[in-house]
Amino acid sequence: MKTLTEAGITEEALARLANCPIPRLKEIMTSLTRHLHEFAREVSLTPTEWEAGIEFLTEVGHITDEKRQEFILLSDTLGLSAMVDIIANRARDNDWTESSLLGPFFRNGAPKFPNDADISDGAAGEKLIVSGQVLSHGGKPIARATVDTWQASADGMYDLQQPHRDEMKLRGRFQTDDDGRFRFRTVRPSSYPVPADGPVGRMLRALGRHPYRPAHLHFMFAARGYRTLTTALYLAGDRYLDSDAVFGAKESLVVRAEPALSSNVKAGAIDFRFILREV
Amino acid sequence: MKTLTEAGITEEALARLANCPIPRLKEIMTSLTRHLHEFAREVSLTPTEWEAGIEFLTEVGHITDEKRQEFILLSDTLGLSAMVDIIANRARDNDWTESSLLGPFFRNGAPKFPNDADISDGAAGEKLIVSGQVLSHGGKPIARATVDTWQASADGMYDLQQPHRDEMKLRGRFQTDDDGRFRFRTVRPSSYPVPADGPVGRMLRALGRHPYRPAHLHFMFAARGYRTLTTALYLAGDRYLDSDAVFGAKESLVVRAEPALSSNVKAGAIDFRFILREV
Repeated sequence: MKTLTEAGITEEALARLANCPIPRLKEIMTSLTRHLHEFAREVSLTPTEWEAGIEFLTEVGHITDEKRQEFILLSDTLGLSAMVDIIANRARDNDWTESSLLGPFFRNGAPKFPNDADISDGAAGEKLIVSGQVLSHGGKPIARATVDTWQASADGMYDLQQPHRDEMKLRGRFQTDDDGRFRFRTVRPSSYPVPADGPVGRMLRALGRHPYRPAHLHFMFAARGYRTLTTALYLAGDRYLDSDAVFGAKESLVVRAEPALSSNVKAGAIDFRFILREV
Repeated sequence: MKTLTEAGITEEALARLANCPIPRLKEIMTSLTRHLHEFAREVSLTPTEWEAGIEFLTEVGHITDEKRQEFILLSDTLGLSAMVDIIANRARDNDWTESSLLGPFFRNGAPKFPNDADISDGAAGEKLIVSGQVLSHGGKPIARATVDTWQASADGMYDLQQPHRDEMKLRGRFQTDDDGRFRFRTVRPSSYPVPADGPVGRMLRALGRHPYRPAHLHFMFAARGYRTLTTALYLAGDRYLDSDAVFGAKESLVVRAEPALSSNVKAGAIDFRFILREV
């Protein structure tokens, strides 16, 4: 019988994976086990600290339901989600538009709108005209692409965080025209804190970190023959651009709202070219 | 604004810990973040795999309640609990009795028994006489030490897993006599599977691992002036001794049940010297 030393226990735990019938699972669990053990050894994790970790994860599990996914929030705030996103887009060169996190507020089946529609439904805030063109790698406009967009209000709240959460607000589905263009009216979203009233919020406070995301508009583009692109545009000048609590903001996705000349009311305007990757 | 590359995202996530006011927390989170990111990078974790991980942890959280702690089971089966235990006992030399996992079946306030009592309450199984002596490092008997013991039945079930789970069975609290000795009667416990009907059980099956623990009796020793020792004795000859699903079995804690000569019925007997560490 083996005597389990600090090194031996890792060896033994890895040896137990010998009969794993799924090679990819074996690969993942080998790396995970090794890093988990190395972490514990590196910091000399005490039983009390281990227990605190178990209690923390239990709380994360118990606060998670259909409306709230605290494990995703934990992954987001530790930079793991951003890492997975970067890895998934490893192969991209600089021509394609960068992806950004889906986040917890996407909803399938958002109301369909014609171009130029106003998705703000009278919500308060600075008016914003958003336009974009969806293009192929070679610069060919992609017509009839589906464009989902969703965003926070000027108060930094998504419809899902409102008392009447069943109502869809500040989100919509558009279709690009023959030139691959889409355009809609809305209000400028605000930066906002990720849900900070749970264990992850407590973790951020203990770490001396703020819970804010810089102001942004989410987009998801789908078109036959192209990979679906989940991304976001971040508004230049936001104070949290460099310290996004979930590491989602990317330089290539920052846009500046310029005064809209075409509008008869005071409004900002942003315009962006989204380049999709062929399947 | 920084462009977040694979290496950059880790750097950035570590930089966010700069203002952490608790040095030990900062140390732990630095190591954890680095290993978490390295794991994802090493295996090129895909968004689908990441999602499967989130769903797995969510399930572990949702099945956990006051009666069942699936996160501890997860930690146990990955060898993390055993690692923490080994680290905590790093300083020990070979004179002290090795520790072993507390496990999920310890209960505070087990019934007190005088020495020689039978804790089996008529339960079926091979009779076993358990005796021990509790000693200091220098070999001095420790009188009036509290000895908690708890074990599975001959069917491999703890009282907590029985329909009438409020009844305390096959557990008890003893006190050592002037010679540091204690003794009780019971039945030989059986090897048993850890709870395998949840996500951790599914994980073990996917990994091609069995869920069994070798037969053992748990002990917890408490005495003024000594560190509390949580340990277990493992019965020699058990087929799972070398592949304990939770990595708890240790060579130094294996005992062989010998025929009990003093008993008027057929019984096995085990005897062990437990050496406690001074505070």
